[in-house]
Amino acid sequence: MSKYWSDIVGELQPYKPGEQATSDGVIKLNTNENAYPPSPTVEEAIKFFSSGSLRLYPDPMSLRLRTAIADLENLGIDNVFVGNGSDEVLAHTFRAFFKNDVPVVFPDVTYSFYPTYCKLFNLSYGEIPLDDDFQFRPELIPARNGGIIFPNPNAPTGIYLDYSEVELIASKHADSVVVIDEAYGEFGTRSSADLVKKYPNVVVTRSFSKSYSLAGARLGYALANKDLIEGLYRIKDSFNSYPVDRLAEVCALAALRDRTYLNSVIKKIKESRETLTNGLRNLGFRVLNSEANFVFVSHEKIMAESLSVALRERDILVRYFSKPTRIGNFLRITVGTEQQVQKLLASMTEILR
Amino acid sequence: MSKYWSDIVGELQPYKPGEQATSDGVIKLNTNENAYPPSPTVEEAIKFFSSGSLRLYPDPMSLRLRTAIADLENLGIDNVFVGNGSDEVLAHTFRAFFKNDVPVVFPDVTYSFYPTYCKLFNLSYGEIPLDDDFQFRPELIPARNGGIIFPNPNAPTGIYLDYSEVELIASKHADSVVVIDEAYGEFGTRSSADLVKKYPNVVVTRSFSKSYSLAGARLGYALANKDLIEGLYRIKDSFNSYPVDRLAEVCALAALRDRTYLNSVIKKIKESRETLTNGLRNLGFRVLNSEANFVFVSHEKIMAESLSVALRERDILVRYFSKPTRIGNFLRITVGTEQQVQKLLASMTEILR
Repeated sequence: MSKYWSDIVGELQPYKPGEQATSDGVIKLNTNENAYPPSPTVEEAIKFFSSGSLRLYPDPMSLRLRTAIADLENLGIDNVFVGNGSDEVLAHTFRAFFKNDVPVVFPDVTYSFYPTYCKLFNLSYGEIPLDDDFQFRPELIPARNGGIIFPNPNAPTGIYLDYSEVELIASKHADSVVVIDEAYGEFGTRSSADLVKKYPNVVVTRSFSKSYSLAGARLGYALANKDLIEGLYRIKDSFNSYPVDRLAEVCALAALRDRTYLNSVIKKIKESRETLTNGLRNLGFRVLNSEANFVFVSHEKIMAESLSVALRERDILVRYFSKPTRIGNFLRITVGTEQQVQKLLASMTEILR
Repeated sequence: MSKYWSDIVGELQPYKPGEQATSDGVIKLNTNENAYPPSPTVEEAIKFFSSGSLRLYPDPMSLRLRTAIADLENLGIDNVFVGNGSDEVLAHTFRAFFKNDVPVVFPDVTYSFYPTYCKLFNLSYGEIPLDDDFQFRPELIPARNGGIIFPNPNAPTGIYLDYSEVELIASKHADSVVVIDEAYGEFGTRSSADLVKKYPNVVVTRSFSKSYSLAGARLGYALANKDLIEGLYRIKDSFNSYPVDRLAEVCALAALRDRTYLNSVIKKIKESRETLTNGLRNLGFRVLNSEANFVFVSHEKIMAESLSVALRERDILVRYFSKPTRIGNFLRITVGTEQQVQKLLASMTEILR
């Protein structure tokens, strides 16, 4: 604590991302990165990029990228906001739409950045308890709230909420902004993106980090009614004129073009997710039904923390949330390649023996 | 104005960056971009970049880049914060250190993003009037203030404040955080970076956009005592874990390595600045003494706005600030290549005829 800090700084509870691997042999299943590299179109786009253009600022409105996203999502360019990763997009969303006279609400087991944003923007929040099977219960959302946000599929559980239930939340809470965080949306059954055409209070956020394998390039976007997108641009233009750099934009445009590659990667991950789920269940694990690129698991006979330590000794990183809550005995394991999944299952078998 | 916006959104006064050129033939002297491309080491780094690594998140603490900057600035890694352009770094700086019980202060003619940040973070501010020659008068800074910030060289005037005067501000206002925005620092006489070793209240921000020709890659940094850097990381980690992407980091590291190229570019720009300054003075312009990569000019006989329109008709963009203040009749003109400077001078001659 420094006397030079503003009042807020000491009170913040900064988010802690999963660690980065420092040696090459490690199997990194701790931050839900894609098991596969981005499309070859990205490699090509980088190779053909002329560094001379870097002397110029990027387009502050990212028109090219927003047009490509709008085409993909079957929306207008006025319905698209882009930013430096969906984390930045979410931060601006909290600032732009959530009110501080009543609590913002989100599930009690969810992306742990949400309470961090609330602290940063001085928003109170209330948690909606998931049921014993970690299902979201929208009927528990209070009629008066400062905004609603939830990931779909949820993180770190991987559990997907049906489109019809998402729509019900949007229509029932017409006075609140409802944010559906689809960071893992491409691995799930159906996106809620088209709800933004029907509901002026819906924001859907999406990411290039997971399905497009571009976590290292920092790109995310929000879809919404044009008034909400204007609100996001007002915040962004009061914060940083150019959050999306020229190289990142070129990578995103290239990745968006190659639908065949994207779909093949998603298919492989879904297949490996099934291998992983079944394999762990055969070893006695409780594995929640995941529609994301990770599984959330626990075992009756061995503590999650001990498991994570034993895996680390075998050069496998998984995510353990050291929290005294009901997820305190769970591990979140990213779906790797088929080979990585087999390696993980073999290690688990060995550890449990 | 939407009913879904939070209270702050409607009150914001978003910053408007200079327009981007849409056709190729335009001479773009309106956003202080470097006239020259980045070092060939940047081109090489991009060509050798393996796109496969983009599937992984960047290092959230940017240790490699911070180490390189610390070495350059003769400081420790704990004295370096990096972000998505110096605009993002400045935004976090306002949030982390400026107090809202008394006004933050900055010159009345200065970077127009400062009042925008104040609006965003709900900070009041007071403007310190520059004298008739646009010189900063540190003696007018009130003893009680919520923080002090000024660019050095100042923007849009280009006027440099002596190192000794900067130091005096830091020592005299020991209870305030003093931010020296050196976005254009490499074109000036002397950086204040080493003051951070001596004064725990000093923050110096710098940019890769101008001198390193990397405006399109979005990189900026702050130098300060380690307690202040920790404060910035607390804000950043409550906002966006990974603002610096993998490609941007690689570009910055490559640019930092090539000091010979950097110095040759700076030398050329200083020479062209002299050509431009003298040429405009010969045409009857008032040209402030600039230590940046732009000049701030006005002419008695022709309005700045008319000049900017006439230049645009000749495919030359310059920056005109449409403000009813004493800078309302000034133009800010980026120092281009020698050829661009000659073209501008020829056009001005023609217009004035």
